[in-house]
Amino acid sequence: MILLHIFVSYIARERKATHMHTGTTKIVLTGDRPTGKLHLGHYAGSLKQRVELQEEHEQYVMIADIQALTDNFNAPNVVTQNVYEVLRDYIAVGIDPTKTTIFLQSQIPSLTELTIYYLNLVTISRLQRNPTLKAEIQQKKYENNLLAGFCIYPVSQAADITAFDGELVPIGEDQLPMIEQTNEIVRKFNSLYGNILKEATPIIGTTKRLSGIDGKAKASKSLNNAIYLSDSPTIIKQKVFAMFTDPNHLKVSDPGKVEGNIVFEYLDAFHKNKNEITALKEHYTRGGLGDTALKSILNDTLQELIAPYRECRNDISSIKMREILYSGSQKANQKANATLEKVKKAIGLHYF
Amino acid sequence: MILLHIFVSYIARERKATHMHTGTTKIVLTGDRPTGKLHLGHYAGSLKQRVELQEEHEQYVMIADIQALTDNFNAPNVVTQNVYEVLRDYIAVGIDPTKTTIFLQSQIPSLTELTIYYLNLVTISRLQRNPTLKAEIQQKKYENNLLAGFCIYPVSQAADITAFDGELVPIGEDQLPMIEQTNEIVRKFNSLYGNILKEATPIIGTTKRLSGIDGKAKASKSLNNAIYLSDSPTIIKQKVFAMFTDPNHLKVSDPGKVEGNIVFEYLDAFHKNKNEITALKEHYTRGGLGDTALKSILNDTLQELIAPYRECRNDISSIKMREILYSGSQKANQKANATLEKVKKAIGLHYF
Repeated sequence: MILLHIFVSYIARERKATHMHTGTTKIVLTGDRPTGKLHLGHYAGSLKQRVELQEEHEQYVMIADIQALTDNFNAPNVVTQNVYEVLRDYIAVGIDPTKTTIFLQSQIPSLTELTIYYLNLVTISRLQRNPTLKAEIQQKKYENNLLAGFCIYPVSQAADITAFDGELVPIGEDQLPMIEQTNEIVRKFNSLYGNILKEATPIIGTTKRLSGIDGKAKASKSLNNAIYLSDSPTIIKQKVFAMFTDPNHLKVSDPGKVEGNIVFEYLDAFHKNKNEITALKEHYTRGGLGDTALKSILNDTLQELIAPYRECRNDISSIKMREILYSGSQKANQKANATLEKVKKAIGLHYF
Repeated sequence: MILLHIFVSYIARERKATHMHTGTTKIVLTGDRPTGKLHLGHYAGSLKQRVELQEEHEQYVMIADIQALTDNFNAPNVVTQNVYEVLRDYIAVGIDPTKTTIFLQSQIPSLTELTIYYLNLVTISRLQRNPTLKAEIQQKKYENNLLAGFCIYPVSQAADITAFDGELVPIGEDQLPMIEQTNEIVRKFNSLYGNILKEATPIIGTTKRLSGIDGKAKASKSLNNAIYLSDSPTIIKQKVFAMFTDPNHLKVSDPGKVEGNIVFEYLDAFHKNKNEITALKEHYTRGGLGDTALKSILNDTLQELIAPYRECRNDISSIKMREILYSGSQKANQKANATLEKVKKAIGLHYF
């Protein structure tokens, strides 16, 4: 009896400790569609944040190959060939596989099981009204030809988030309706089957979306206007010197505009010395600072930033990469299977 | 070298034998939504056929609990409580677990994975045009509230059929569009990813759909007009004597109508002596054969038919049932996992 008593108080102490711990530590779920290497837009918008989040939280980063297939099903190699490229970028910028669980969506079968159960909780018309999905459907001209896989990918996202008890989900503002969709499913599920799933809280990035080097709203692979973490020094320089500045700033002595000037946007995002940037802006505005001089400063900044990442991403062996992805997926499977088991038990699907 | 040669010819002989065998033996895939015990309509329409098919073919019979949840998600116990009832009925009528693999859909995770990949190959509007689904949507008044899970269940069926290389699929005529939908997915998949999946051939039942005892078109649980394999002798008798006959056949001496007379429909379906039925029909038509006498004959027929099934279904222990369903699901998992592996490899999702 005494032994049992001691054992029970030991468990109680352990539980308290765990609870206190989870009071500050939350589970973060985030990820990327592997449709290309990652660029400075990803770096400023999410990668840097993940490197910070992994210090405080339990972080899962998903390479979303299944989701990427929903609009690349007819060219699956676009997806499959980029999985390891994205992983290289993750490791290079400092996402640490000993702190962050990096995993591959297609290797986690319970995510598809959860999706199937959640599909019973959402109408097709609700999905079609989802503002994020609606915008994508218009952009991709899918209106008359909406594929079922693409239509239901918000439900698949709900599975991804809830499978890992994702409490914090870092996203761009345009993705807010996706979190709302997930939380609707969570509330519907819990009201039907018991309080099993957790609602997610979005973390909206403070960095505004990085523009493309051509001045277009968004740096993206399809517009070929992004600077990649894997770009060579020569390519980086070429891209910097091709950057959109102020089209009316013709002579060095002309006063130039800072607003809409992509070189300044990138300097703001990546240069470490804010005072120096302020001085450069003043000089450029009053005239006397040429685009070439300005671009040289940005070039130095980006070369310095990217060089160690590029080196690191090229140094990681393929074997090491496979190990990281395999063991991350194993760990993710454990977590997602545990959620699936709870979900199936709550529905009543426990027969053996 | 000689040893190797002998070994190779041994393998070659074995292969030939296997090949000759599969020339006649095909894979049959069929199943039921577990939303109630099975009745004489199921017996005449499919169960009897399965008992025959298992002698010639490799048969998989699926208890489709996931599919049943698509329109019972808010009352899952309707589904979960009937899984073992349906299994009892299977065993009772002679579906032999040593010849037929009986399995539970929710225990085969690869079916949900296949569904997710197939969803990329079908548009929402194509699903909504599927005549079987369309009729069900109208019948259930789902038009303005179509749940995603219900909308995509034909894709889930395609996963069920193809996972087991189902070549023969016994169905009612109204289910033909489902096989067409499956084969469309098969062709689309094969054209994109290589020749991996097999098209299915429907086997249309020769028995026309059994009417309810009230004369309604279809015996069904929801109309409470069916005779169950589990019904007690008293209940069977009550139901037979409540059967719809010829409402104008008031006196024994009156001439009666055979067409639309449910007692004759059931006698045609279940009485062994066709000559005796012909004689009874003539007697009834010319007058002089009362409904009570006629119903007594049917009652004897059905009591004799059902008694051994009822006894058998009550005799099977719960432990035995669990064993059957567990080992059947294990075997089904092996087969479905093999298909999934081929499918994922064809798409390119083989990373490790």
